[in-house]
Amino acid sequence: MSQFLVQLGNAATAVEGFLAECLTEQQANGTPPRLADALRHAVLAGGKRFRPFLVFESAGLFGVARDAALPAAAALECIHCYSLVHDDLPAMDNDELRRGQPTVWKAYDEWTAILVGDALQAIAFELTSDPRRHDDAEARAELTHALAIASGAIGMVGGQMLDLEAGRLPDQPAATIADIVRLQAMKTGRLITVGCEMGAILGRASPSDRAALKTYGEHLGTAFQISDDLLDAEGSAADVGKATGKDAAAGKATLIGLLGIQEARQHLDRTIDAAVAALEPFDTKAEPLIAAARHMGQRDS
Amino acid sequence: MSQFLVQLGNAATAVEGFLAECLTEQQANGTPPRLADALRHAVLAGGKRFRPFLVFESAGLFGVARDAALPAAAALECIHCYSLVHDDLPAMDNDELRRGQPTVWKAYDEWTAILVGDALQAIAFELTSDPRRHDDAEARAELTHALAIASGAIGMVGGQMLDLEAGRLPDQPAATIADIVRLQAMKTGRLITVGCEMGAILGRASPSDRAALKTYGEHLGTAFQISDDLLDAEGSAADVGKATGKDAAAGKATLIGLLGIQEARQHLDRTIDAAVAALEPFDTKAEPLIAAARHMGQRDS
Repeated sequence: MSQFLVQLGNAATAVEGFLAECLTEQQANGTPPRLADALRHAVLAGGKRFRPFLVFESAGLFGVARDAALPAAAALECIHCYSLVHDDLPAMDNDELRRGQPTVWKAYDEWTAILVGDALQAIAFELTSDPRRHDDAEARAELTHALAIASGAIGMVGGQMLDLEAGRLPDQPAATIADIVRLQAMKTGRLITVGCEMGAILGRASPSDRAALKTYGEHLGTAFQISDDLLDAEGSAADVGKATGKDAAAGKATLIGLLGIQEARQHLDRTIDAAVAALEPFDTKAEPLIAAARHMGQRDS
Repeated sequence: MSQFLVQLGNAATAVEGFLAECLTEQQANGTPPRLADALRHAVLAGGKRFRPFLVFESAGLFGVARDAALPAAAALECIHCYSLVHDDLPAMDNDELRRGQPTVWKAYDEWTAILVGDALQAIAFELTSDPRRHDDAEARAELTHALAIASGAIGMVGGQMLDLEAGRLPDQPAATIADIVRLQAMKTGRLITVGCEMGAILGRASPSDRAALKTYGEHLGTAFQISDDLLDAEGSAADVGKATGKDAAAGKATLIGLLGIQEARQHLDRTIDAAVAALEPFDTKAEPLIAAARHMGQRDS
């Protein structure tokens, strides 16, 4: 297994332990038991935990220990998990399975899944702003603000809106490359980018270091999405762990549909190079983040 | 019209103007147009704006100007509005009308309503943590933290879960008075209480003043709920502005069902007195908040 995958696995173990403790504490503080169970189902049923890894490694560039970055990393993962729970709803993507498990609405019911997503979003901002978790009030407010913008109407939620509009509203014009790039930057890219920025906030990074991490995050988000689309187009379901060929079957506009596989792969390679180049100020300290970017060219799941 | 209703109307005008500006700014920053329209529908289609009033008047006890309290007041109203949008969904209360207008899912569709609620929650925390809105980082983090806890799994969302469980899961035991009090304190009371606490946070109140406002808010929340239940049981639909007798028809457990109308009204009077008594430290400065509590005994809508 690559060094990157080992580090990703370590990040996952750390953030899952922390999230499990958080949910136990929430239950002790009065979360209704059925909601608490459904929250665990939503948060602790696997996942690569790639976004927490980015918070850890970005913060690590500035000497921030993993434990100090855990609440922010967990908050970002809560936002990601809430988006999956709501995206899986019948009125959205209508998915019954995720990572081999029934989705929350399928395991419980729709109203529980709606409330689980709502509660997870609140937990995320409770974590970023908690004085027991981060002793610097400026950092608490800044983490909250960056995460709220990245996940809201001009970020993840806005991107999900564009995605559903394209598939469901009548008389939509055919998507251009610019449309797809914007949609994917909002829907997927913003949360990946903000993971890197949250590391910079925790590390009280200089404006130029923070800008470098933001540039890295933007390219990484693009690379992540292209590699996802390539997996969907090229991978076998057994390797990828979920159904493949879904985009083409759904007539969904992707960069691959417009560029073809070969050109998309070249674009991926250029994007990875740009991500790596953005890390130049950090020299060899950035090796884990460089490896994460390079991994996007070699994904098999 | 009572002085209280005049002040409530002024608060509504102020917060609606601010929210309209916020949504315009969000759209300028890239909110997809259809999502921006649906957000306006959710936020600007009326409402008493009682929660923002509480933020203004609580902050005012400490000399905080209305303008300085506007972002926090608007954030609280965004949380309230998101909860209504999600509560109205077919999988939740399945309501097609609110304040005489089609609900968001009815005017648009279910997926848009889910995303509108999600985006509103993010906007709320963007507002509480925005450095352009509050120059004190400690206050930004504290406003965020209080609002996240009050609205999440141990507050509003948890209360909504208990409410739906009671009506929908098989073999639920009959609700006791204690069950109903807990459910209503979570579902409705916590947001009302946090409105008063946000005023205290903005005013950098002493711990004892903040505790007094919290006690006031808890009693006020209880009074608000009992008066709501009394309106449902006693009011005519024309006066109340929505269908009445819904609780009884739905077999919903309320304090009135367990105590009877007369005893519930006595309990309401005692609760109002307790709310007013909590304001004693603020003397005559608290008159608007006293009037708000007294109003709960005289509501006709």
